[in-house]
Amino acid sequence: MAETAFSYQILHQFSKQIFSSIGCSDEDATLAADVLLSADLRGVDSHGIARLSGYVRLWEVKRINPNHSIKIIHETPSTAVVDGDSGLGLVVAPKAMQIAIEKAKAAGTGWVSVQNSNHFGIAGYHAMMALQDDMIGIAMTNASALVAPTFSKERLLGTNPIAVAIPAGSEAPFVGDMATTTAANGKLEILQRKGLDTPAGWVQDQNGNPVTDAHALKNGGALLPLGSDVTHGSHKGYALGSVVDIFSAILSGANYGPWVPPFPAYVPMPENQPGKGIGHFFGAMRIDAFRKAEDFKKDMDQWLRRFRSSIPVQGQSRVMVPGDPEREYEAERRVSGIPLLRPVVKDLKELGEKFGINL
Amino acid sequence: MAETAFSYQILHQFSKQIFSSIGCSDEDATLAADVLLSADLRGVDSHGIARLSGYVRLWEVKRINPNHSIKIIHETPSTAVVDGDSGLGLVVAPKAMQIAIEKAKAAGTGWVSVQNSNHFGIAGYHAMMALQDDMIGIAMTNASALVAPTFSKERLLGTNPIAVAIPAGSEAPFVGDMATTTAANGKLEILQRKGLDTPAGWVQDQNGNPVTDAHALKNGGALLPLGSDVTHGSHKGYALGSVVDIFSAILSGANYGPWVPPFPAYVPMPENQPGKGIGHFFGAMRIDAFRKAEDFKKDMDQWLRRFRSSIPVQGQSRVMVPGDPEREYEAERRVSGIPLLRPVVKDLKELGEKFGINL
Repeated sequence: MAETAFSYQILHQFSKQIFSSIGCSDEDATLAADVLLSADLRGVDSHGIARLSGYVRLWEVKRINPNHSIKIIHETPSTAVVDGDSGLGLVVAPKAMQIAIEKAKAAGTGWVSVQNSNHFGIAGYHAMMALQDDMIGIAMTNASALVAPTFSKERLLGTNPIAVAIPAGSEAPFVGDMATTTAANGKLEILQRKGLDTPAGWVQDQNGNPVTDAHALKNGGALLPLGSDVTHGSHKGYALGSVVDIFSAILSGANYGPWVPPFPAYVPMPENQPGKGIGHFFGAMRIDAFRKAEDFKKDMDQWLRRFRSSIPVQGQSRVMVPGDPEREYEAERRVSGIPLLRPVVKDLKELGEKFGINL
Repeated sequence: MAETAFSYQILHQFSKQIFSSIGCSDEDATLAADVLLSADLRGVDSHGIARLSGYVRLWEVKRINPNHSIKIIHETPSTAVVDGDSGLGLVVAPKAMQIAIEKAKAAGTGWVSVQNSNHFGIAGYHAMMALQDDMIGIAMTNASALVAPTFSKERLLGTNPIAVAIPAGSEAPFVGDMATTTAANGKLEILQRKGLDTPAGWVQDQNGNPVTDAHALKNGGALLPLGSDVTHGSHKGYALGSVVDIFSAILSGANYGPWVPPFPAYVPMPENQPGKGIGHFFGAMRIDAFRKAEDFKKDMDQWLRRFRSSIPVQGQSRVMVPGDPEREYEAERRVSGIPLLRPVVKDLKELGEKFGINL
């Protein structure tokens, strides 16, 4: 599967033009392209420009409103619930995160639950927004159900990611960003294309039996929660994915569990939905609401240095801290460009033709 | 290993008398016994009365101050940092959680990081304190280093648990309470006593090789983060354990990473400690800071019913929600008593003799 590298600037401009073409304001189109492309820069290829045509298809079936205006529908000094007005999640999410940051400036912390949104790109982008204000940032979202709870045959949870970004002094910051499943769906799709089986512990079939068939999910099976099976703590991954679902959707009034809208526009919407759109949850904690920022950063630097200098096991050159691999991807891809698989390039070119935009 | 069942009341009274004997006030001794015994009631035998003599040994070496007075050393409307004054974690923790709850009453949410504390029993107890006020409760703590980060030979993190308690309407609440490791140390100890190996994926030896030796930890090995290996997401368990460490100790000024004081009084303290005691982190979010509590509870009940009625895989009678097994333990043990292993009973009787208290 050959790859071609495109510069960040080219892909950003292309994405921005597409978002403008479906009716986004200039500001929203730029923001959406920023968020989308941050996934490609950071090596999370499954959540980047490869999904651009998917967002457009959601707009075509009127599930995305490009002229949305987000609204705070309930608030206290440290909390808010935001109605995303069916806007692009890529735009709703950073705006809601900004509200959390403003709340934190006044009250020490800010916590925002969002209803009526859509897929928001990578959680890490939104969590990292807090870093520049010397805050810890937290972002999570629910997603359509692909994951079976421990001992269940049914898909009741999304891959429901959690991201936590923590500032430091002279060391690079800590940025954890992870699905609450053993393996993300993007990794399954890569194995499918290559005709390979999955490792044990990633998926189960439609009867709930553990299998290594990379197509199991498409055939009515399910992804497994982080931990894979009960002997290895899958009930913990199940609990984490549940917390993300509840904070994102039950605090906000969005859809939850098996009722979350699917990302592919051709998949029918679940019946009897209890809420509005998909849900997100954001948090911002001002460091100096707890402790002088310089004292925190001194300790955080020591923590980061101790972990980064830890003795590696044989066959590994070093121990990394969450966020290190993604930061290295970004440094490299800003220089060498973002490699796209041939089918992705073809899909983008076709998308461009629809709107008269060249890639 | 024969077991004898004791009533909750007998064990509570015994524990309270022991805590009084080491100098706790009547109120503190009652609270400490409440927290300690909640572990035994909920089936978390490793964190209950079996540890009572361990707390006393910490007092003997002057690492626990029974006449402590906790102090808020920094605060904002939604945050506080608490100095636990080397008090019993079993008492410091619920007092700090109460501060989080009071903050949430005024500001919507409350977040408290604690320095200078000790082992706090089960995280779930503290998180569940929020339920009676229609709040979501969160509790975490760091602990002495037994866990190796992904690709590391070294033990740099504790089993660092996270608990989240979420209120519901007519359904029993959601209570997740979990170590951020694949298996807790208590499970290893059970296998050691029985002379059995561990399942693959629980531990590594002193060279960082995956092994199934239940004694690996005692011989310089390490517990593995939730996920077990990188193919199964151990970098995610590592990230979660790190977040617990940082929120508990770097936000508060406690010790972190490999510098966290060990629970066994005979284990030497790490050198060059950067902070004070061990750290905890608590959160309380008022439901109606986001949404009318009755609307939240209606959706939460629907969520809980949908998950509890999910179709089980073959060989399982049902799908459970986090907190269900522990609640069932409690219902049963309040009636039939708390079973204690013979060595635990012997240890307690010896402890009682020291202070002239009969079990």
